[in-house]
Amino acid sequence: MPRILLRDIMMRLKYAIVGTGALGGFYGGMLAHAGNDVHFLFHSDYDFVCKNGLKVDSVSGNFHLQNINAYHNTDQMPKCDVVLVCLKTTNNEALKKILPPLLHSRTCVIMVQNGLNIEADLAVSFPHLSIAGAMAFICSNKIGEGHIVHLDYGKITIGSFQGENRELIGQVCNDFIASHVPAEFSDNLKESRWQKLVWNIPYNGLCVVLNTTTEQLMRHPKTHELVRDLMFEVIGAAKACGVQIKEDFVKAMLDSTSTMKPYAPSMKLDFDFKRPLEIGAIYSAPLVEARSNGFDMHKVKMLQQQLQFIQDSYSE
Amino acid sequence: MPRILLRDIMMRLKYAIVGTGALGGFYGGMLAHAGNDVHFLFHSDYDFVCKNGLKVDSVSGNFHLQNINAYHNTDQMPKCDVVLVCLKTTNNEALKKILPPLLHSRTCVIMVQNGLNIEADLAVSFPHLSIAGAMAFICSNKIGEGHIVHLDYGKITIGSFQGENRELIGQVCNDFIASHVPAEFSDNLKESRWQKLVWNIPYNGLCVVLNTTTEQLMRHPKTHELVRDLMFEVIGAAKACGVQIKEDFVKAMLDSTSTMKPYAPSMKLDFDFKRPLEIGAIYSAPLVEARSNGFDMHKVKMLQQQLQFIQDSYSE
Repeated sequence: MPRILLRDIMMRLKYAIVGTGALGGFYGGMLAHAGNDVHFLFHSDYDFVCKNGLKVDSVSGNFHLQNINAYHNTDQMPKCDVVLVCLKTTNNEALKKILPPLLHSRTCVIMVQNGLNIEADLAVSFPHLSIAGAMAFICSNKIGEGHIVHLDYGKITIGSFQGENRELIGQVCNDFIASHVPAEFSDNLKESRWQKLVWNIPYNGLCVVLNTTTEQLMRHPKTHELVRDLMFEVIGAAKACGVQIKEDFVKAMLDSTSTMKPYAPSMKLDFDFKRPLEIGAIYSAPLVEARSNGFDMHKVKMLQQQLQFIQDSYSE
Repeated sequence: MPRILLRDIMMRLKYAIVGTGALGGFYGGMLAHAGNDVHFLFHSDYDFVCKNGLKVDSVSGNFHLQNINAYHNTDQMPKCDVVLVCLKTTNNEALKKILPPLLHSRTCVIMVQNGLNIEADLAVSFPHLSIAGAMAFICSNKIGEGHIVHLDYGKITIGSFQGENRELIGQVCNDFIASHVPAEFSDNLKESRWQKLVWNIPYNGLCVVLNTTTEQLMRHPKTHELVRDLMFEVIGAAKACGVQIKEDFVKAMLDSTSTMKPYAPSMKLDFDFKRPLEIGAIYSAPLVEARSNGFDMHKVKMLQQQLQFIQDSYSE
């Protein structure tokens, strides 16, 4: 069946955004701004957004959604076809209570998060759920209540966890593209997740441990070298886990980060605001996965140990 | 010849202390307090000490040396039999000018410093000099002008660089012991230096990178594990360089540090006061030595890269 016909007969998708922060506010905002049917779950910003709406200042154009479908808990929300989970992984335990009201029999839950084995963890609690994962390649921050700033990039890559729902995910990608968000279907979620880790593991951790920015890390020859060392270690671990990432991927990552605007990765912001760090998903899970495949990431482990010390020092 | 006779016929040694800070102030102070002939080189504290003398607050008893042989540069100092170099290694370049006025044909220069290959570096500038190295196992700080506080421990271990002057070094050890400073002659300077690195490499670097104390590092299970990992890496490097350090040495170091009073290692104090860090002697030299013997210290290298970034950030 040709794609154009398939798309024509598909119904309009109903979206839920779980966690309307830097990611959820931008991606959900873009979908809603383009006329999609989007329902947003807010936490602390709920009252503010009901009065003032959602504001997105984006490099590709600012917009303001005065009337959005805002909710304070999922009991009041409709069942949706697609749920974009844009929480921090440190809050994933709460999904057991958050998700059920949103689910019908064919709902696809897309985990827009960093790290590894996030989908497998969710499948433990929801064994019959259709799950996908997404990697957001974006620089965005929430700078105030209901106020998102989108600084650079923006592509979202979505892949199915266990191979199902490829057509639905294709439609989600098309909805994003029609909403001016670059989107890509990933044939291999595991590979995409490891690729993202090649960036996340060095930059997130080092920006926290050294209290700095990606720009400063790239400017000093010693940390430039360390970032590269860490990237190669992650590539080695991926290979042990059956995922081939070409070595020139490292050069591409280094080059694109060097030319990127000075940026504080999400973990650095969590550190600055004394929030829990996503150590489990971004460091511990890859370390365990690599170890169980006979590969020790020595430097990544050291970074994890340092991060755990730092987080526990300020959360004491 | 029995030792007692040898000692009897030896002349009283004339000592120079180059760098009267936390180490030089304590060790030189103890020697002078016991009646030895000691000549102190001061830098910024010179005027103060001429007026007020040198004060040592020690766990084993406080004392005050009102009249000491204080000098502002070595041109005014007598030639000495023993020179204790207690500068930071980051100032060793200055020894080319500092040392010559102190040297007669049999002077022994003892490098009381942390790190590796310090004696070999000095021998490049002074090829005919008799050189020894010393490791100070001490917690002491300079807390004000001419004011040293000695918190814990204090043993000094001295070894000859190229095997000469063993008798003279033996006499220096005896002078220390007679001055109530535990002192030990090392048969193997290289081994002693690597043993000291087992402690210095993890604690100095991690206290700076994580902005903390030895006590906090030992209290958190992740940094406790990281300290141990680093110690084993140093032992592996030592082995590659021909130095056997038993694995239970690690347990002894960890245990003694756990029960030590909360302490900021010298590099942490350098960091707090925005002084240059001794990265070259404590990290770079062992890394080069290990690498040239086919051993890569992955975690130590990462610590070195982080420290270099930190030092260059504040010295910019």
